[in-house]
Amino acid sequence: MGINIPNFLSSKSKNRKMTDFQDLDHLDGLAVSAASANLYNSSRDDLVMFYFRDGANFASVYTQSKILSENIKWNLNPKSKKIFSLIINTRNANSFTGDQGFKSMQTIAEIASKELTEKQKQDEDNPKKIQPKNILFGCTGTIGEEFPEEKIILKIPDLIKNIKYTQNKLIWMKAALGIMTTDTQPKMAMEECFIGNSLVKIYGIAKGSGMIYPNMATTLGYIFTDADIPNEILKKLLKKNIENTFNAISCDGDSSTNDMVAIFSTSKIHHPKINSISDKNLKHFEQSLNKVLLNLAKRIVADGEGATKFITIKVFDAKSDLDARRIAFSIANSPLVKTAIAGEDPNWGRIIMAIGKSEAQIKTDNLSIKFGDINVIQKGKLHNSYSEKDAVNYMKNSNIEISVNLGSGNKNFTAYTMDLTKKYIEINADYRS
Amino acid sequence: MGINIPNFLSSKSKNRKMTDFQDLDHLDGLAVSAASANLYNSSRDDLVMFYFRDGANFASVYTQSKILSENIKWNLNPKSKKIFSLIINTRNANSFTGDQGFKSMQTIAEIASKELTEKQKQDEDNPKKIQPKNILFGCTGTIGEEFPEEKIILKIPDLIKNIKYTQNKLIWMKAALGIMTTDTQPKMAMEECFIGNSLVKIYGIAKGSGMIYPNMATTLGYIFTDADIPNEILKKLLKKNIENTFNAISCDGDSSTNDMVAIFSTSKIHHPKINSISDKNLKHFEQSLNKVLLNLAKRIVADGEGATKFITIKVFDAKSDLDARRIAFSIANSPLVKTAIAGEDPNWGRIIMAIGKSEAQIKTDNLSIKFGDINVIQKGKLHNSYSEKDAVNYMKNSNIEISVNLGSGNKNFTAYTMDLTKKYIEINADYRS
Repeated sequence: MGINIPNFLSSKSKNRKMTDFQDLDHLDGLAVSAASANLYNSSRDDLVMFYFRDGANFASVYTQSKILSENIKWNLNPKSKKIFSLIINTRNANSFTGDQGFKSMQTIAEIASKELTEKQKQDEDNPKKIQPKNILFGCTGTIGEEFPEEKIILKIPDLIKNIKYTQNKLIWMKAALGIMTTDTQPKMAMEECFIGNSLVKIYGIAKGSGMIYPNMATTLGYIFTDADIPNEILKKLLKKNIENTFNAISCDGDSSTNDMVAIFSTSKIHHPKINSISDKNLKHFEQSLNKVLLNLAKRIVADGEGATKFITIKVFDAKSDLDARRIAFSIANSPLVKTAIAGEDPNWGRIIMAIGKSEAQIKTDNLSIKFGDINVIQKGKLHNSYSEKDAVNYMKNSNIEISVNLGSGNKNFTAYTMDLTKKYIEINADYRS
Repeated sequence: MGINIPNFLSSKSKNRKMTDFQDLDHLDGLAVSAASANLYNSSRDDLVMFYFRDGANFASVYTQSKILSENIKWNLNPKSKKIFSLIINTRNANSFTGDQGFKSMQTIAEIASKELTEKQKQDEDNPKKIQPKNILFGCTGTIGEEFPEEKIILKIPDLIKNIKYTQNKLIWMKAALGIMTTDTQPKMAMEECFIGNSLVKIYGIAKGSGMIYPNMATTLGYIFTDADIPNEILKKLLKKNIENTFNAISCDGDSSTNDMVAIFSTSKIHHPKINSISDKNLKHFEQSLNKVLLNLAKRIVADGEGATKFITIKVFDAKSDLDARRIAFSIANSPLVKTAIAGEDPNWGRIIMAIGKSEAQIKTDNLSIKFGDINVIQKGKLHNSYSEKDAVNYMKNSNIEISVNLGSGNKNFTAYTMDLTKKYIEINADYRS
């Protein structure tokens, strides 16, 4: 089981009491649907469709892997300015499936766009013709298995029949559950904020849970807002705010061919027009978007495969941003640090090791390390107040914070990871069998 | 327990039948001693001394970590042309021990050099005055604990009293056991070869076993030869031959502050003078040295913490040496690949993932992958003869070979690693407690 960490709770909305962080409700301009195509088995949903009746502005960031899954290749092909549907399947990554895998995307996009055009004719006053290039795909699961095109095509009619034009908490939960692979918990987050005098919503769902490392790995993250933000500004917002959220997490240092975080804006709320990323009316929106992204990113780590502890690694006063990142991730990706924390052992020597092996510049005499509020190393020496007993007690927490101060500049970076346990091995040695 | 792998056996010597790869015997010009300073407990040796009665030429390579242990700082201080002793302790890495740790090296070197000078007076016809700068140190164990200077000083007299001027298999075993930390098996290797018409020996011992990644990590490796090779040629030989041996192994991607591989040449055998690294008389010596280094490096991997399978990763036809290395180590360091192999799962999708996430240039259409002799991917497609059943059977071997052909150049690299098991977690979560 993952770890429930209270500080993941979304800040309370200004205008209403939020009793549950998973209290997502209707987001105008969006429709949601889920179905089982029997990709795992018939008892769970494995296909999720987001449908934008009037289209949505969008932006997306993808894996940095040199090998891209076929759905990402499809998504990278020229698209219209508006997206009408995002279809996500689990169990099969559609990666290393070659031309056939790409053609499956095309075929499914053709069928879905045709059926959605029919739905437009039935339900809309001004029906639009939806085209294959209005559709995006998210795929996650095993790499290199033949893509189950037929099974998915068979379920498209059900998926469209199931479309709900209004959302409640249960429908969001269904969508978040429907995109899971080895995740043990669905991942949702929400914020509300004002643009001018208009209240807008930012809702998101995500999945992990192994193979998580910048940039994003098996992660899928989908953010929806009813605000009206143009594509190019969505793109800048996403690129900027992914850096200290989804790109600040690591579970095991592995990355997938399928990572995708996308944002969709349905433009249903009227508010002052947003002209640039530095528009002052966008300030609260950007803060709230960052909160949603960070909240989802933290949930992915907390549900990292086999995790029993959530680890925050704060690096301060590095000479460069790159050095700060390198040190944070050298610690976050060290199996020896992560197993020590699993064993509740305040083995700070391994943190020294991880700092040393990063390619960052270090002045040992300036180096300070803390576990939570406990001073361990100060200016290159074991702190005179350091008590191993206190540190051992601290390590019993499920939330561990490691602070490293390099004393050689003014750049900071925070990374998030989890401990490395026997359960991780179990999950990953047995995933396919 | 580590894995015993038959191909680690040293090649048979030309001039005598080698019945046991651990059949190390006397090496002229060398003396060996071991003792317990009660660093772990009193029932095992934790101090080993190599003593060169007439001095030895030497060369050494060290960790690439930005944080160096105090013994390595000591070793890097100007030394004489000849080394008279190498003293190795286990249990404490003398890393992050500050000035005190460095001063301990100085104090111990002073005491040992003084006592060895006394021994020279007793035993030698032409006694030499041994100085602190004639002494090198190897330290391994926990980082950041106060260095047990007093305990070690107390045992120096015993260590010198125990010195054996002739070696047999048991004494070598004692030395190899005495430098172990979490290793489950002592590591020794030997070769013999001719320089001109003279037979020379190359013997080596090493320790692992976690935190192994280029460059060398917690690894200690010590090579001894009775050949007569000058310091500058030893240095070039070691730097060149470390690359495809000790720098080709990875257990967990972690590196230590203490890595050290050194070679000592006692010059007791008369042979044609060696003038350069390209001297034709050195050819067999270099080949044999490489075999000893590779043999030890493989033993370290095979005894990697928790290892149940030995994995060889061969990368062919890369565009550059760097690309070949990057891909080999991206696979070798991937927890998802290593757990799949632990689970005997031929999950080639994870190999694709690891290739993709490396920073090397890939043309998917040129990519081929094999498990042993089984064709998995050929030119970017699943091979038409591939049978999952055969691959599952292959994965039951304790020796797994993964070949990756990139089809984009002519550079090759082979890396060695082991699988990632629950036992690794156990060992590392409980190491200090």
